[in-house]
Amino acid sequence: MKQNILVIHGPNLNLLGAREPDVYGSDTLEQINSRLSQFATQMDFNIEIIQSNSEGQIIDALHKARGKADGVVINPGAYSHYSLAIYDAVIASALPVVEVHLSNVFARDQFRRQLVIAPACVGVISGLGWRGYIVALETILNLKKKNP
Amino acid sequence: MKQNILVIHGPNLNLLGAREPDVYGSDTLEQINSRLSQFATQMDFNIEIIQSNSEGQIIDALHKARGKADGVVINPGAYSHYSLAIYDAVIASALPVVEVHLSNVFARDQFRRQLVIAPACVGVISGLGWRGYIVALETILNLKKKNP
Amino acid sequence: MKQNILVIHGPNLNLLGAREPDVYGSDTLEQINSRLSQFATQMDFNIEIIQSNSEGQIIDALHKARGKADGVVINPGAYSHYSLAIYDAVIASALPVVEVHLSNVFARDQFRRQLVIAPACVGVISGLGWRGYIVALETILNLKKKNP
Amino acid sequence: MKQNILVIHGPNLNLLGAREPDVYGSDTLEQINSRLSQFATQMDFNIEIIQSNSEGQIIDALHKARGKADGVVINPGAYSHYSLAIYDAVIASALPVVEVHLSNVFARDQFRRQLVIAPACVGVISGLGWRGYIVALETILNLKKKNP
Amino acid sequence: MKQNILVIHGPNLNLLGAREPDVYGSDTLEQINSRLSQFATQMDFNIEIIQSNSEGQIIDALHKARGKADGVVINPGAYSHYSLAIYDAVIASALPVVEVHLSNVFARDQFRRQLVIAPACVGVISGLGWRGYIVALETILNLKKKNP
Amino acid sequence: MKQNILVIHGPNLNLLGAREPDVYGSDTLEQINSRLSQFATQMDFNIEIIQSNSEGQIIDALHKARGKADGVVINPGAYSHYSLAIYDAVIASALPVVEVHLSNVFARDQFRRQLVIAPACVGVISGLGWRGYIVALETILNLKKKNP
Amino acid sequence: MKQNILVIHGPNLNLLGAREPDVYGSDTLEQINSRLSQFATQMDFNIEIIQSNSEGQIIDALHKARGKADGVVINPGAYSHYSLAIYDAVIASALPVVEVHLSNVFARDQFRRQLVIAPACVGVISGLGWRGYIVALETILNLKKKNP
Amino acid sequence: MKQNILVIHGPNLNLLGAREPDVYGSDTLEQINSRLSQFATQMDFNIEIIQSNSEGQIIDALHKARGKADGVVINPGAYSHYSLAIYDAVIASALPVVEVHLSNVFARDQFRRQLVIAPACVGVISGLGWRGYIVALETILNLKKKNP
Amino acid sequence: MKQNILVIHGPNLNLLGAREPDVYGSDTLEQINSRLSQFATQMDFNIEIIQSNSEGQIIDALHKARGKADGVVINPGAYSHYSLAIYDAVIASALPVVEVHLSNVFARDQFRRQLVIAPACVGVISGLGWRGYIVALETILNLKKKNP
Amino acid sequence: MKQNILVIHGPNLNLLGAREPDVYGSDTLEQINSRLSQFATQMDFNIEIIQSNSEGQIIDALHKARGKADGVVINPGAYSHYSLAIYDAVIASALPVVEVHLSNVFARDQFRRQLVIAPACVGVISGLGWRGYIVALETILNLKKKNP
Amino acid sequence: MKQNILVIHGPNLNLLGAREPDVYGSDTLEQINSRLSQFATQMDFNIEIIQSNSEGQIIDALHKARGKADGVVINPGAYSHYSLAIYDAVIASALPVVEVHLSNVFARDQFRRQLVIAPACVGVISGLGWRGYIVALETILNLKKKNP
Amino acid sequence: MKQNILVIHGPNLNLLGAREPDVYGSDTLEQINSRLSQFATQMDFNIEIIQSNSEGQIIDALHKARGKADGVVINPGAYSHYSLAIYDAVIASALPVVEVHLSNVFARDQFRRQLVIAPACVGVISGLGWRGYIVALETILNLKKKNP
Repeated sequence: MKQNILVIHGPNLNLLGAREPDVYGSDTLEQINSRLSQFATQMDFNIEIIQSNSEGQIIDALHKARGKADGVVINPGAYSHYSLAIYDAVIASALPVVEVHLSNVFARDQFRRQLVIAPACVGVISGLGWRGYIVALETILNLKKKNP
Repeated sequence: MKQNILVIHGPNLNLLGAREPDVYGSDTLEQINSRLSQFATQMDFNIEIIQSNSEGQIIDALHKARGKADGVVINPGAYSHYSLAIYDAVIASALPVVEVHLSNVFARDQFRRQLVIAPACVGVISGLGWRGYIVALETILNLKKKNP
Repeated sequence: MKQNILVIHGPNLNLLGAREPDVYGSDTLEQINSRLSQFATQMDFNIEIIQSNSEGQIIDALHKARGKADGVVINPGAYSHYSLAIYDAVIASALPVVEVHLSNVFARDQFRRQLVIAPACVGVISGLGWRGYIVALETILNLKKKNP
Repeated sequence: MKQNILVIHGPNLNLLGAREPDVYGSDTLEQINSRLSQFATQMDFNIEIIQSNSEGQIIDALHKARGKADGVVINPGAYSHYSLAIYDAVIASALPVVEVHLSNVFARDQFRRQLVIAPACVGVISGLGWRGYIVALETILNLKKKNP
Repeated sequence: MKQNILVIHGPNLNLLGAREPDVYGSDTLEQINSRLSQFATQMDFNIEIIQSNSEGQIIDALHKARGKADGVVINPGAYSHYSLAIYDAVIASALPVVEVHLSNVFARDQFRRQLVIAPACVGVISGLGWRGYIVALETILNLKKKNP
Repeated sequence: MKQNILVIHGPNLNLLGAREPDVYGSDTLEQINSRLSQFATQMDFNIEIIQSNSEGQIIDALHKARGKADGVVINPGAYSHYSLAIYDAVIASALPVVEVHLSNVFARDQFRRQLVIAPACVGVISGLGWRGYIVALETILNLKKKNP
Repeated sequence: MKQNILVIHGPNLNLLGAREPDVYGSDTLEQINSRLSQFATQMDFNIEIIQSNSEGQIIDALHKARGKADGVVINPGAYSHYSLAIYDAVIASALPVVEVHLSNVFARDQFRRQLVIAPACVGVISGLGWRGYIVALETILNLKKKNP
Repeated sequence: MKQNILVIHGPNLNLLGAREPDVYGSDTLEQINSRLSQFATQMDFNIEIIQSNSEGQIIDALHKARGKADGVVINPGAYSHYSLAIYDAVIASALPVVEVHLSNVFARDQFRRQLVIAPACVGVISGLGWRGYIVALETILNLKKKNP
Repeated sequence: MKQNILVIHGPNLNLLGAREPDVYGSDTLEQINSRLSQFATQMDFNIEIIQSNSEGQIIDALHKARGKADGVVINPGAYSHYSLAIYDAVIASALPVVEVHLSNVFARDQFRRQLVIAPACVGVISGLGWRGYIVALETILNLKKKNP
Repeated sequence: MKQNILVIHGPNLNLLGAREPDVYGSDTLEQINSRLSQFATQMDFNIEIIQSNSEGQIIDALHKARGKADGVVINPGAYSHYSLAIYDAVIASALPVVEVHLSNVFARDQFRRQLVIAPACVGVISGLGWRGYIVALETILNLKKKNP
Repeated sequence: MKQNILVIHGPNLNLLGAREPDVYGSDTLEQINSRLSQFATQMDFNIEIIQSNSEGQIIDALHKARGKADGVVINPGAYSHYSLAIYDAVIASALPVVEVHLSNVFARDQFRRQLVIAPACVGVISGLGWRGYIVALETILNLKKKNP
Repeated sequence: MKQNILVIHGPNLNLLGAREPDVYGSDTLEQINSRLSQFATQMDFNIEIIQSNSEGQIIDALHKARGKADGVVINPGAYSHYSLAIYDAVIASALPVVEVHLSNVFARDQFRRQLVIAPACVGVISGLGWRGYIVALETILNLKKKNP
């Protein structure tokens, strides 16, 4: 049976390509998502991709994935630095979750060096651009192999 | 005339029973809500119960209660630790609000020891499980008696 | 067999009624204790009530309760905010202990927001006035039912 | 061609007039908005005014303004003190944004002295009451003149 | 009778125009002052303008205004961030005082985000350039209307 | 009728004269107390002097003074730096209390610069040696004159 | 030969009587100074009294006293909390200096609890009103007796 | 002449053996004390052993030892982390004092890593179980040899 | 021409497989290195792998790579949290460097959440086990493609 | 079979005797080592003693001891206060390690009060001079007896 | 044409020689200044030397130097540790400024380790006594050579 | 007899000239060293120059200089900000040591403002480029003259 993976893009990621291209690259979210879908086809798993600027909707999405998805890839945007509610939701999802950041958050503002959701995740990938999402998807797929 | 009390369950509480049962107990939110409704019948007051993962919707609910409800019981979940906007909303509601936590938040992660909404509340009940809600409802009812 | 519950009133609580009645209410400690005794009669359990301004005596009392009492209700007063020795004594008592505060400690001085004994307790009740003690006693009684 | 300015009222501002009138004044939000609309008519620019208690919706509004509006006036309410996601949204909007507070936030609670969105804004106006919005609108209009 | 308003320019503001024009603009203090005087003529109030690099002289000026002026507009420069003595002087003046900064102090060095005089002021205007002074003057004039 | 003043010497003050004479002077506590008694005779008021190393006994003494004494002079020794329970007791005593330190606590260890009881006192006298007690007694006597 | 004592009143003390009389009392600085002069006559020492709002002038005064005066009484006002330059000047004066505060600085704003000049002084007197100056003068006189 | 050494067991140590045996071992205080007494007999010195849960009594014991004992071995329990009054008492005792902890306090709660009494001691022994007391006694005996 | 990539394993990584296998996995460093070499063969680039427990040798290795290698993959072990000298060496190498951690450092000790070398790196990969190294190597290879 | 114990002297300990003899005593490292060797002969265990100023070599030594030695005595010198890499190496050694300091580190510079390696050790001995090493060796020998 | 260099001695430096000679040396300011003047003659540049205890006058001096002097040597005394206004003045002067301290400020009080003006300077020289001024003057002269 | 001075260049200084020339200048370490040697010849003292990236080797070098050299000039690079072991080694060397930084460390990253080795040094020179070393050498030579 095919695996199901949910990808969550957090706040402000809908403006990718247009927004600060020197920091986030010039690819639009649509272009990135289409690469992720292609990768899903190629690796033969189901992918669901959502974007939301709302902390509550991100929590809702994590809840809905519980018991249905095999893992989650999340880029929590700025919520990474203070949303303890998403931290709780990641734990409550009881799923392997991988946190992705397009830019290297450790090389920017001081406040971006604190990651409050990461302690509930399997791992963190920061600074690899859109490829970070592919790596995160591979990580979920690999976990499955280890824990059949 | 019957009193009206609003109960607000905050983020991640919809997963009660399934989520970390060793921390939050194995009762589902439905089971708890049904006990609260029974208590309302028994004590002859109107109860309205909502659950939301969204900070904004919790604020909306507090606003709607203003001038209509006689008090609010709120479990703000992880928002307890940083939502200054809910703190403002509790004050803006001009209602007696009692904060409830199922688990003893002081015996868990360090960040859960900071309660930013509590200064705007009548009181805080933490670690009594679902009975904490009953105690909070009684507290609202008792206040009414004191301030007729 | 009847349960035995110890109630410990910490420093400055002997002046209740006279001391800052707008913060702590106008009931004297005697009036509160008499209500607690009545509740014990009504619920058919043995209650022992002590008050002490001394950190050492509060520790002694917790030790004496070990192996004899079924639970403890404690209002540690200002010791709540720095007495690591009482924290150790609560753990050493190997009993369920519920912490009570008459006023909402989160709505007063900044230093009252730090509770160093609470991590060793079953739960915390703050701001419910003398009824907080009744709630704490009920909590101990309910624990017994769960763990016969 | 007429300029377009978006005005965003953040959380709890819908209760203006009723909520703590000694802090926020007794004007309702409707009264303030009507004065802002009058000012828009008088100065011949288009004004759009929204109010939301939701962090996500405020971010959405900033995104929608991108490329359409000539500037934004925002009163982020309590989100001013922790919403790094709105900070990112202000930058992502690529628009001149002016932050307004009705009361003098520096003369109230300690936590209100930290402004995390302000570093992304053109400027901050605090304590001038509803006139602060007019000043902010004028600021946007003046910027336009400088950068034709 | 005409109102009297004192304008105090704090340390380093005498070098405006020459000093870091990208931060503070290229207007000289004389040009700004002449606009303020024009505004006073137009609005029919008396204006007195001083500039000093000395903390003590700024305190002296605030004292002299006491009982004579109807309000003060102050740009305390870097003293904004540590001069508790000017904070005390603002309170001691018993006058409405509005704090003005030409640049947006929240978008510069970390140390500029702390405003120790502001809690004693009516409000703060930061980042509006020389127009900030006009706004501050209008604020004083408006207060007068409200409190005749 | 004669005034009654209680003098409380806190922990380690019983060793005065012997203990670190270069810091605390070479007078014994008996010698100091005898000078205080002489002063009481001369000024015609009743003095009661106690010394205790126990936080609880100091609280007890403050409670007993309530309603009986006209004021208290206290040297809380090292408890000055952390005893929030004595702070509460000073408030609960509802009496004018003056805090005295023999040495200048601000010129010694870093931890001695924090005075947690002082906010509940009328004033603090530090570094005047045994004469500090006389000054504190005079302060109580003077208060009486002002508030007959 | 008569002793010489310098009294320095720091910033904002010139407004005594008028400025916040509930905090600082209703005596004017002139009235206080006249009492100090009377005391000097009565105790047969020379007194020089100055008031300055300027940190630099206070340092100058301390320097001038060096080698001429027998001691200094200083009320540094708000400079108490940050003027490390006055701290250095007190040490450089090589004189016994006593710090006086009219109000109890420990019972007011948080920032007033830090005394940076005090470590260089003989002692600190806070909260005794104008009598604090008399006490400070006596302290200087007593030191002289001890160290002839 | 035989040396005299005082051993002070601080708060909660009376429950040794019963209390958290995985942390503190299963020996009772009586068993440990008997080994210490045996060691005293064997090494030919007088030993006095006390246990107290009271900060004040521990201070009293240190005072009584002054001038009588040749050294003190102290396990201050949780008072180690905040009792500045015991710190003062150790200095005031003018005796060599060795601090002992049964468990390795650095490997437990964060708050146990701060030792406020230790700066007044000869040394600290932590994590060696009951043998730590023997080592501490040997340390006192060795000091005597060095300083006859 | 083939690319050259240096892999640096920092302190304690030589014990992989044996050391805390629940945290770091049961693969030995040799097994991991052999997979990395295989990957190099497969992707046709030269790989050099070193391991050192010495901060100085890690700096030396980074220096030697300068101008010779096309990129560096580094797992700085515990040096990640304090070695500012390696941070400087990464910058001095003028090479793209990717930081890898086998475990999720954000889900372990508090001190592991601070990454002082990361701000000088292209990105950070944490919690992906040995595959993290493969991802880091791919990242270097991809950079080359982008910047020919 | 004889036990094997490794003794590691950290940075600057090679200068013992010459370096600050009032702090560290006048014994040279050779004298101390010879006493330790004598003790090993007397107690019939093998001892290996090394000294290194290099963090990396200390880590190497801990690694080499793994699986060969029965325990380690370490005086990490100033590395005690920041070497998280040695902390990791102690854990990775899977051996009982006892930390020794010649002087009482809690009675010296503020920075010496933080011990970052100690949480990974069996215990800490500080201030007993060279005898601290003997005590540490005895501790290792005793552990062996308990865990055969 | 000759270069012009301004030397500014900050607060308390007028007392050099007399003030704490073990810290600052026994040379008077006049002696130092005469050596600086000699050096100016010898190196053929114009020197202007001022001393002031007033923060405002130091700012004034920096302003006056702007556009006239080729560089400034400043010893800001205790203002080094908090005068953000002088920091701004150094930047506003648009001149190379070298900060000098006679003593090694890093080896004295904790507060002297923070240098708030230094970030605006070319460099800092601390602990070289009066020669530090010569070095600073040479530094200014050398800069000139590099940037003709 | 000729003086002997050791110069120690710390981590990353071997890359001078190539590494961030805008920060550190374009001179190579060889060029700087050759100027220092020339200066030694000219001033007739022996110079030994080493560079090391290893904390341990820097400590070794300081030890070897003890009793042989007349002083040390050290640029500890990034170790300046955390190497307490080098701090101890400087003290243990019992030599006058001058700390040099090529760039102005106070004008760069926040972490570079903390100098932990400097309190053990004679002085600090920062921001004077390679000439800082010459100044440091002169300082050592001058000390010799003062203390023959």
